Amino acid sequence: MAFPGELSVGRIPVVGVSPALEEGRWPAKAVVGEAVPITATIFREGHDAEGATIVVTRPDGKRDVRPMPLKDFGNSLYEGIYIPYLEGMHTFRVEAWSDPYSTWAHAAEVKVAAGVDVQLMLDEGVVVLTRALSEVRRKAARKELLSAAVDALQDHSLAPDKRLAPALADAVRDELTERPLRDWVSPSREYPLMVQREKALVSAWYEIFPRSEGARYNARSGQWKSGTFTTAAKRLPAIAEMGFDVVYLTPIHPIGLTHRKGRNNSLTAEPTDPGSPYAIGAAEGGHDAIHPELGTMRQFKNFVKAAADNGLEVALDLALQCSPDHPWVTEHPEWFTQRLDGTIAYAENPPKKYQDIYPLNFDNDPEGIYHAIRDVLQVWIDAGVTLFRVDNPHTKPLTFWERLLADVARTHPEVIFLSEAFTRPAMMHTLAKIGFHQSYTYFTWRPTAEEMGEYLEELSGEGSFYMRPNFWPTTHDILTPDMQAGGAPLYQARAVLAGTGSPSYGIYTGYELVENVPRPGVEEQIDNEKYEFKHREWAEADALGVRDVITRVNAARGRRVSLRRLRGLTVHESSNPFILCYSCHVPADQSPTGKADTVIVAVSFEPHVAHDAIIRLDMEAIGLDEDARIVVDDALTDETFTWGREFYVRLDPAVTMAHVAEVRTP
Amino acid sequence: MAFPGELSVGRIPVVGVSPALEEGRWPAKAVVGEAVPITATIFREGHDAEGATIVVTRPDGKRDVRPMPLKDFGNSLYEGIYIPYLEGMHTFRVEAWSDPYSTWAHAAEVKVAAGVDVQLMLDEGVVVLTRALSEVRRKAARKELLSAAVDALQDHSLAPDKRLAPALADAVRDELTERPLRDWVSPSREYPLMVQREKALVSAWYEIFPRSEGARYNARSGQWKSGTFTTAAKRLPAIAEMGFDVVYLTPIHPIGLTHRKGRNNSLTAEPTDPGSPYAIGAAEGGHDAIHPELGTMRQFKNFVKAAADNGLEVALDLALQCSPDHPWVTEHPEWFTQRLDGTIAYAENPPKKYQDIYPLNFDNDPEGIYHAIRDVLQVWIDAGVTLFRVDNPHTKPLTFWERLLADVARTHPEVIFLSEAFTRPAMMHTLAKIGFHQSYTYFTWRPTAEEMGEYLEELSGEGSFYMRPNFWPTTHDILTPDMQAGGAPLYQARAVLAGTGSPSYGIYTGYELVENVPRPGVEEQIDNEKYEFKHREWAEADALGVRDVITRVNAARGRRVSLRRLRGLTVHESSNPFILCYSCHVPADQSPTGKADTVIVAVSFEPHVAHDAIIRLDMEAIGLDEDARIVVDDALTDETFTWGREFYVRLDPAVTMAHVAEVRTP
Repeated sequence: MAFPGELSVGRIPVVGVSPALEEGRWPAKAVVGEAVPITATIFREGHDAEGATIVVTRPDGKRDVRPMPLKDFGNSLYEGIYIPYLEGMHTFRVEAWSDPYSTWAHAAEVKVAAGVDVQLMLDEGVVVLTRALSEVRRKAARKELLSAAVDALQDHSLAPDKRLAPALADAVRDELTERPLRDWVSPSREYPLMVQREKALVSAWYEIFPRSEGARYNARSGQWKSGTFTTAAKRLPAIAEMGFDVVYLTPIHPIGLTHRKGRNNSLTAEPTDPGSPYAIGAAEGGHDAIHPELGTMRQFKNFVKAAADNGLEVALDLALQCSPDHPWVTEHPEWFTQRLDGTIAYAENPPKKYQDIYPLNFDNDPEGIYHAIRDVLQVWIDAGVTLFRVDNPHTKPLTFWERLLADVARTHPEVIFLSEAFTRPAMMHTLAKIGFHQSYTYFTWRPTAEEMGEYLEELSGEGSFYMRPNFWPTTHDILTPDMQAGGAPLYQARAVLAGTGSPSYGIYTGYELVENVPRPGVEEQIDNEKYEFKHREWAEADALGVRDVITRVNAARGRRVSLRRLRGLTVHESSNPFILCYSCHVPADQSPTGKADTVIVAVSFEPHVAHDAIIRLDMEAIGLDEDARIVVDDALTDETFTWGREFYVRLDPAVTMAHVAEVRTP
Repeated sequence: MAFPGELSVGRIPVVGVSPALEEGRWPAKAVVGEAVPITATIFREGHDAEGATIVVTRPDGKRDVRPMPLKDFGNSLYEGIYIPYLEGMHTFRVEAWSDPYSTWAHAAEVKVAAGVDVQLMLDEGVVVLTRALSEVRRKAARKELLSAAVDALQDHSLAPDKRLAPALADAVRDELTERPLRDWVSPSREYPLMVQREKALVSAWYEIFPRSEGARYNARSGQWKSGTFTTAAKRLPAIAEMGFDVVYLTPIHPIGLTHRKGRNNSLTAEPTDPGSPYAIGAAEGGHDAIHPELGTMRQFKNFVKAAADNGLEVALDLALQCSPDHPWVTEHPEWFTQRLDGTIAYAENPPKKYQDIYPLNFDNDPEGIYHAIRDVLQVWIDAGVTLFRVDNPHTKPLTFWERLLADVARTHPEVIFLSEAFTRPAMMHTLAKIGFHQSYTYFTWRPTAEEMGEYLEELSGEGSFYMRPNFWPTTHDILTPDMQAGGAPLYQARAVLAGTGSPSYGIYTGYELVENVPRPGVEEQIDNEKYEFKHREWAEADALGVRDVITRVNAARGRRVSLRRLRGLTVHESSNPFILCYSCHVPADQSPTGKADTVIVAVSFEPHVAHDAIIRLDMEAIGLDEDARIVVDDALTDETFTWGREFYVRLDPAVTMAHVAEVRTP
């Protein structure tokens, strides 16, 4: 920390560097191939020219240097782009410097034209270009270019403007922009940038309760036979066919019997009720064990392999709570909250108690609990699990997560953690900062076009450097009032919003069947799969069109890099408050293909009536001239449109609730 | 810097601490007696209660501890107030902690009422209050209070609610808020806070050219006789009578002859032209010398003493540039930019040259230049100068200022520097961050009520922790088009805005006479005092009313602490775009008197026509109930009004352009 008395400002000041989370308290995040715009406020005294450079130190210790041009003069803002190509911890700094060539070039251009100090200007040019030749390494051809300019400056046979011209030619300026002569190089501090694999940003999740997949009801006995990893694996091709790349399993561990919940969250279970998989732990084992009805570890590994064969990674639920029957309760009673009366504290929200759950008390023996959970993770990582959906991380100490995630990041950097914290923003943002790769969001609770537009812009703004949203239109816990009422059209629309509004999104199984009946008084499904087996007739999905929309959205995500990036989203003006229009855009200099990529999405928020709108595009935001015409291919309807700055859309629930308009590159 | 792998988040996380300039790269600023709101985002896992404390380490090494209550639940924002009472470098940290008493109190209140876990709750209360007694030092009376509560919890003769009641009583809660039982105390990092004397924030400047004060024109010879420090001192009582506390002198040093500027900035001076005092340095000396026509060092010190006798401190101009005749040009030619042709570079804005000025080149012999200028400052500090108005600091390296200001702050902490940098925001803000106490602003270029209102709110916002504005309606360099056209009423209005919109403001002499005629084509006065002597007939000021307004504004500033603070300004809704209404407010807990202080200012921006408006006060912003009635005394008209949430004002240029309504404390 710099206190007055030490010099902190630098000869050419660099302030307000971004991305910086509390000046480096936490690293900003990126994935391989994702453009990171690095900005800083840079200025200097007087009128001489300054310049800026980004210097990135990669995990292999080598340095990448990138130009950092002026972006906004009034705000003294410089911006450069760094596209990381290695995973691991990078650091970057911004170097500001005095630019003697540009200073001279400006003065020389003006003064020679005005006939002021002509010989002096030419002489100074010789000095500055000679320095540029001797002090900076250049390719031979570029050296010749500069040498020729020096010769011209000294060629008294020419008129002054001719002597000057080569030194101010574009080729010379370009060379001195790329490889500048730099005086008074003034570095910022070093800022950390954590680079992860692309799936940390880009993923399409499909959630299942494995016991339901292949479960069979015996009408005679009135009993269910649980699905297994083996029967669940049969579902994988269908999931893959829709275009998902992650299959997420709710907890697969033994389920407690004590105070087991019955159907529809009733306090008493029938003997045939399978119980909530979130009441983890029974005689058969705890978080490192598998529910016997699902299969064995070998069968689980076979499931992981089958998933991989279908292009799917497996995500497990990490729900750090115990049923009263969990082995830890007897082996480590000190890991729970012991009441003064000798009992173990249930989960509660006073005066309510949840008697099927004992929360861990992380402040009792934090070392012991930490290592036990770290060991649990290792069991599943060793079995091939590469993602964890963490249940309610905001009810555990953040120090625990920070330590755990840092450890896994070091030893298994491929493993991705999704935070399921629906709570106040400070907690959600800080969980992201301390290491969660992805976060559930309030997507589900943004029912109007206006609210959704604002939320999309918020999430793709400053927070995009650390919090990566994962959008879920429904989950096994969430069925919002609008989803209960909107039918198949709204399910279609919300799948489009989720899949194009965020690089990561997820679908809870049965979504294709528009399962939208709530348990009365509660915003979740009736006959919730948490408490019972569920059989689904997939053939019924065909008529509803939801599966088709999902499949088309996933295909577009695969084709279009702009749908796989968080930054670059712009909401456009719509004349109809029921229609939201936004674009996802990656400029050419930030694109892996070197070509700009743009998708324009228009979605209706009204599933019962056709709506139309005039859309007015912010052309600058998608890198187009005001009068440009674009040809777009709609990924949903296979139609092709030609649009300009203003265009008309009509979204009829009977036809389509949305356009996912892929802009053709000219 | 914390990298993943180290724990950075803390058991009870503290993030986003304010005021913090780049996490402590520079100190926030305050003056003695000025309330500093310290905020942080604090939250924790689960449902247990957390609390927060501010710990300030003073320059004497001792600690002050202040409570930091929750301010905004949704944003997890805590805020505490620290009012420093010592000058010098402080540091502060925020401590977040687990609050076992509040956690228990909430559960006990709910559960005992519901008849759940009653005995357990009472038993837990005994444990937590016994800890509160043994672990935290308390006054005897408070100990008894807690002991009695413990006894009641254990008194089986009482009903459960009676056993519980004393432990939840307000007196016990208050004691445990003031002296809490704290678990898992989690400190933020330490942040610097520089505390200066009050004048660094609060000052009323009056600018004079000392040579004009008492200058006499000899009609026969056509020559002027310069004013002197002795004649200028005669003006001091009049300046003091208006209520100013700083008299600022434009440069008092010998003036160069080479390329001296004539009247109205003409390139050739007549032999009788005195030259611009900003062309510093002649045979008689440089920045440490006094122009012989003004007097001697002894006479200057007498002037300083006379000023002090009138309650005025003396500010000098620090204009770090040299005329070609400055002694440094021959003694230290290496301190200037030497051209290739052997000449010294003039100041220029290519292709224009300013041949009367050589800028210093701070990169040539920075040590030599630094010490020379530091010596110059010491000469004037030793002579009693306590403020410097720094001319164009943004044309010198910021490293120079940072070093100079830090050195003077260490050795002469009473000395105040005012930055005259009219340039892009990044430079202005950074000059403030690296040590300038006050800054000129764009006040002068905010001609409309709307623009002014936005600017006042901007300056009193986040930037108030480092940049203290000093508002000048005109200067010897600045006469904006509106000021040229608005006559005495606008001069009155702008004086009110300057004197009440910012704790520091300044008036350039002659303002009382509404000197508003520009040199054609330039936004400065004709016959600019920079280039000639100026005689003023002060008796003519009486009829214009400007002096009276200034005097009344300064008197109100003396009476009202809210006019001496930067934070606490709120712009209120006005039905008329020509009338701006804002309030200055210091809440009781931030006031040195312990009583809230409020002044409501309404100003017309239209000097030619009467305007009226309905004002709608933001009552919460001034600490009032929605239906409160207030009695206000107008410092300008001596009228008294009774106002409510909505009130009517009529501002007639023939009567008054403004109200400065001092709210009576009930």
